[in-house]
Amino acid sequence: MSLLRDFINEHDRFAAASGIELIEAGQGSALARMTVQDKHLNGLDIVHGGAVFTLADLAFAAASNSRGSAAVGINASIHYIRPVQQGSILTAQAREIFSHRTLSGYAVEVRDDQDRLVATFQGTAYKKDAPLIPETEKSRQK
Amino acid sequence: MSLLRDFINEHDRFAAASGIELIEAGQGSALARMTVQDKHLNGLDIVHGGAVFTLADLAFAAASNSRGSAAVGINASIHYIRPVQQGSILTAQAREIFSHRTLSGYAVEVRDDQDRLVATFQGTAYKKDAPLIPETEKSRQK
Amino acid sequence: MSLLRDFINEHDRFAAASGIELIEAGQGSALARMTVQDKHLNGLDIVHGGAVFTLADLAFAAASNSRGSAAVGINASIHYIRPVQQGSILTAQAREIFSHRTLSGYAVEVRDDQDRLVATFQGTAYKKDAPLIPETEKSRQK
Amino acid sequence: MSLLRDFINEHDRFAAASGIELIEAGQGSALARMTVQDKHLNGLDIVHGGAVFTLADLAFAAASNSRGSAAVGINASIHYIRPVQQGSILTAQAREIFSHRTLSGYAVEVRDDQDRLVATFQGTAYKKDAPLIPETEKSRQK
Repeated sequence: MSLLRDFINEHDRFAAASGIELIEAGQGSALARMTVQDKHLNGLDIVHGGAVFTLADLAFAAASNSRGSAAVGINASIHYIRPVQQGSILTAQAREIFSHRTLSGYAVEVRDDQDRLVATFQGTAYKKDAPLIPETEKSRQK
Repeated sequence: MSLLRDFINEHDRFAAASGIELIEAGQGSALARMTVQDKHLNGLDIVHGGAVFTLADLAFAAASNSRGSAAVGINASIHYIRPVQQGSILTAQAREIFSHRTLSGYAVEVRDDQDRLVATFQGTAYKKDAPLIPETEKSRQK
Repeated sequence: MSLLRDFINEHDRFAAASGIELIEAGQGSALARMTVQDKHLNGLDIVHGGAVFTLADLAFAAASNSRGSAAVGINASIHYIRPVQQGSILTAQAREIFSHRTLSGYAVEVRDDQDRLVATFQGTAYKKDAPLIPETEKSRQK
Repeated sequence: MSLLRDFINEHDRFAAASGIELIEAGQGSALARMTVQDKHLNGLDIVHGGAVFTLADLAFAAASNSRGSAAVGINASIHYIRPVQQGSILTAQAREIFSHRTLSGYAVEVRDDQDRLVATFQGTAYKKDAPLIPETEKSRQK
């Protein structure tokens, strides 16, 4: 599934601008990573909730797009468990809860580099008729 | 409350890096704005869910910090209603649902420049004992 | 839309067993009511979260089924704002946030008889191909 | 922890009225069970979302009250994965995600008697200063 991972790393501009990298994207699962930098902080000098959400969301997006058809998130929720300071390396691991014909659901755990739970995330995706990666793109990347 | 607005615009680095500006921050409410640029798009060439979430989250953060004490988000949920293309100007309006002694809740509506609903967001905040803006900072800004 | 209201009041056995009545069900909206009795309380002698959820959920179900096709809830969230004692009369008002081809979303406010906000609820529904009320049932009720 | 389990089974009237039994309540975890009867069905003749929510909520309530102080739910979300017919035996297993000084979080999985996932639930609780079970009650039950 490195084609999916490479496609997302290349085309997802908000993830790239936010310093988030997709490490793996497999059959219904995905792993993303972000090293917390000064640019990720909020006014309280801890990591911004939006940055943690975006990290989890990228893992969710990759996992939900690993089933053949393009999928878009329709809703998501996040629980913040532990504040995070600059320098931490966060990873987000997505796993599939279910995958129906038009809907699928994923749970994501965000952990720091000491394996402590930082946030939990759950997202629901809607499957579109088209594939995420155009055929022309697949040919180009081969 | 322009002190709060200015403080957040100056100190929230992830919002700034994401091109999000806080326009107003009043008694339990706040308004934030983001013009969708290429850097906000995902692999499907529509606005990234994390960018919309971050916009809503900034309005939530400002509104929840407008009650005197610093507040941190403990959980949030978002529903995506309409995809958004590059060039749209999105605004997020937060309003207070409740404000108890230690907890408060806010609903945020994200709309495009044709006033169409793009996403709804709800967040819960936990009030800390300290104020958001240090006294020294307040003196400096006067 | 009294046909929909009557159908749900007659056929929804969990709502009936929980003492919940559907008052109105219109174009994308609905109103349900529950008088808090001893049987709705939890171990803390306040109304059980599940009872408030079920009240809100019935309004959500009625509103989401008012658009012609049967709809099933796929996810929902609830925020509890104020504890409720026995004797209170609670109402749940559902309003439509969006109604797409296969998905729709509703926000529900639960209030007590002093019009104080008790809980907020948001639900997403999935539209099935079939109508909620069978044609035979429609004929019978006419 | 059978004291907690027995207290809840005896005092939680909405759970009892809904045919829900608490099987276990331990250190941050709990297991509840419900056999789906006619009274749990909605107008589509499948189990009512409120009944599944109440089952999950009871496991959440028991788990969140197993840490010494009384706890009340402040918000919860549920995702429905599989419809359930009359006759199914559903169990809800709660596990602790975190337990801080004033807040705690729990994930609940609801499964049918073939161990298929029916719903996922996540709840946040707020710890009160008082214990759930009054001292007088503890003495009486000894």
